[in-house]
Amino acid sequence: MTSPEALLRHCPHFQVAIELVGRRWNGVILLALARGATRYGELRDAVPGLSERLLAQRLRELESSGVVAREVRPTTPVQIRYTLTESGAALVEAMRPLMAWADRWADQSAT
Amino acid sequence: MTSPEALLRHCPHFQVAIELVGRRWNGVILLALARGATRYGELRDAVPGLSERLLAQRLRELESSGVVAREVRPTTPVQIRYTLTESGAALVEAMRPLMAWADRWADQSAT
Repeated sequence: MTSPEALLRHCPHFQVAIELVGRRWNGVILLALARGATRYGELRDAVPGLSERLLAQRLRELESSGVVAREVRPTTPVQIRYTLTESGAALVEAMRPLMAWADRWADQSAT
Repeated sequence: MTSPEALLRHCPHFQVAIELVGRRWNGVILLALARGATRYGELRDAVPGLSERLLAQRLRELESSGVVAREVRPTTPVQIRYTLTESGAALVEAMRPLMAWADRWADQSAT
């Protein structure tokens, strides 16, 4: 990464990643999935304050971004499971250093 | 990080960090500083497409967030140097895994 072009080449991709994890609630939803929540009710309970409508919308967005997989099990009643895809699990890992930074420094930067 | 509270405890701090690096141009400005640009002109040249007004505004924001330091040297003419603070350098390091994720996966998630 030497030239401004190389720097900017990161910018659009980086912007997509940052907006994906930065969009309100996405980070906490991804973390809940990473900790094993798979059913809708488990996700809703893992993120108090998040409305059902918004959770459904965010899950659709995360699914269309390829970081969450939605599996429909043809049981009676039908069961739906949400899991992190490979890229989703990698995204959660990539978030951790930023979370650690936030824990260490955020009070300072929130002024 | 086990309980939803612990998850949410990260949320506000994490949100501050994500918005800091996610705010358009901040990531590229921080990277330019990390690569040694210190003077205003160097930063302006390192980020083609960024207006002088917006660069000045972003530098003020990054400075008030404590991740960039602004040093005024009383020479004639006066010289102003921008550098990453300790937390700024740590933030750039914390950004890298997300940039690597973006390089690897972003095309998929930009659909």
